[in-house]
Amino acid sequence: MTIFPADITAAAARIAAYVRHTPIMRLAAGDLGLGFPVTLKLELLQHAGSFKPRGAFNRILRAQENGAVPSSGVIAASGGNHGAAVAYAAQQLGLTAEIYVPELTPVAKCARIESFGAKLVRTGAAYAEAFAASQVRAAETGALVVHAYDHADVLAGQGTTALEFEAADPDMTHVLVATGGGGLIGGMAAWLAGRVTVVSVEPFGCPTLHGALAAGRPVVGPVGGVASDSLGAKEVGGLMFPIAQRYVSEAVLVTDEAIIAAQRILWDRMRLIAEPGGATALSALLSGAWTPPPGARVGVVVCGANADPAKIAS
Amino acid sequence: MTIFPADITAAAARIAAYVRHTPIMRLAAGDLGLGFPVTLKLELLQHAGSFKPRGAFNRILRAQENGAVPSSGVIAASGGNHGAAVAYAAQQLGLTAEIYVPELTPVAKCARIESFGAKLVRTGAAYAEAFAASQVRAAETGALVVHAYDHADVLAGQGTTALEFEAADPDMTHVLVATGGGGLIGGMAAWLAGRVTVVSVEPFGCPTLHGALAAGRPVVGPVGGVASDSLGAKEVGGLMFPIAQRYVSEAVLVTDEAIIAAQRILWDRMRLIAEPGGATALSALLSGAWTPPPGARVGVVVCGANADPAKIAS
Repeated sequence: MTIFPADITAAAARIAAYVRHTPIMRLAAGDLGLGFPVTLKLELLQHAGSFKPRGAFNRILRAQENGAVPSSGVIAASGGNHGAAVAYAAQQLGLTAEIYVPELTPVAKCARIESFGAKLVRTGAAYAEAFAASQVRAAETGALVVHAYDHADVLAGQGTTALEFEAADPDMTHVLVATGGGGLIGGMAAWLAGRVTVVSVEPFGCPTLHGALAAGRPVVGPVGGVASDSLGAKEVGGLMFPIAQRYVSEAVLVTDEAIIAAQRILWDRMRLIAEPGGATALSALLSGAWTPPPGARVGVVVCGANADPAKIAS
Repeated sequence: MTIFPADITAAAARIAAYVRHTPIMRLAAGDLGLGFPVTLKLELLQHAGSFKPRGAFNRILRAQENGAVPSSGVIAASGGNHGAAVAYAAQQLGLTAEIYVPELTPVAKCARIESFGAKLVRTGAAYAEAFAASQVRAAETGALVVHAYDHADVLAGQGTTALEFEAADPDMTHVLVATGGGGLIGGMAAWLAGRVTVVSVEPFGCPTLHGALAAGRPVVGPVGGVASDSLGAKEVGGLMFPIAQRYVSEAVLVTDEAIIAAQRILWDRMRLIAEPGGATALSALLSGAWTPPPGARVGVVVCGANADPAKIAS
């Protein structure tokens, strides 16, 4: 079981009417204080404030094609962004949605999920516990489960981020992507398939892929730090792991301080509000945790913006 | 005296190493609740948070080419954004800068100007009074005056916004641009020269171009409302006015409420923080103050982001 390029091409066609084609922005060497040029994929401007609608729409639309969405609608567990995306997709498609989030999910993300008309259930300490509760509920209602990362259609949907990025910046040699459960990086690595070197960036507080690559299998790790609401899966998905073993070159770890500094730089110098998970990939460059080899053309996905700006801009 | 396309092409080459090539973003019909597709030029992601560095760099670099920048450096008056741009440009070029702003300039913009190392002088009720004070000072020091809008090199620099926008979206038929002193719309209209219909958008509180087109000459108007720090010139520049007479099709007026609503929609649905003046052009579409003719391909410049996000995101 893996994700093929044709799955991602099909996903791109399937979701095209529902997601935004987000822009890239080229920064010259010297910009943001970096000694090399960087191209940002501004995926934080996606509907519902993160890349997550790509996978959510692909999963739900494909199930609809197969007549597999019951009248009880869709159900998902999420740290917040995936829940907002599923709620948004359900609203657009006229479906009922039930979203389970843990207690660590910020109030702003809860409000956003409810603003899209979904029923919100807040339970459990972190994502894994909310997911377990959502599974019990799904067994009762029969609603379509839209997994936050460990489903082939979700991975294929997230992979469209790489399809767009590569088409817009064909000379890119390296791309930095934040990893939580691994849906985004798994889908992107499946598309890029070694043509572009894929670098994972995670906080020390949620080192899921770093731990998995070291152990040779997904392992349960800690969930902590400033990005835990978006990168706080306890372990990477089983579907993405073999893709990562083959196509993710390394798993860089960054401190919370580096992530917070990247958020501030994105606001101070670019007027972008990114949430911690959205600034994590860029923080590896800004902090020096990862340095490109000479001649590299570096891309970075800025993948989420569901933050409270008052905490960033001061 | 007018601005020729060759001046703008030359400006683009002159400033290329100093300004960002900002992205466009295509929104499908239905997005933001609009019944037609719209393409946004995300010029709010420019250095110093607005389009202003384009004109500032072109003016200063051209003066440097002519040996016309004295050791006393540069001086400018501004509601805030132009001052930040001149301060930024001076810092990048190793020059001294003195920036005059009026009392209505927000504290955040003052702090930004000082963060780039410029000397800040806050004087006078609105831009026009700060400008008068800066002229007295310029006569004392001999510093190069970098006018906020009424200088050919500034207009040519701002015109590069249109050069980029048209190249990225060659099918655009109409473009909406906010007008204060008219540097941005004047430069853009000079470039587009009738190939694209240029629509001016101003707040009722600062109707400089609306009043000028009605009177047949620049006239002094009121300075008020939420966008007065960025669009609060008392009258449009003499250089831009004949360009506007020829190439600006109409001057739409919008309410402060429409501008504030546009700011909120940009944050809620796109995760962009725009200042009032930066959201003004889009507000004409969102409020229905201007409606495109059937088949139009509408572009909008989102031109400034020097806002306090805490006031928008709530």
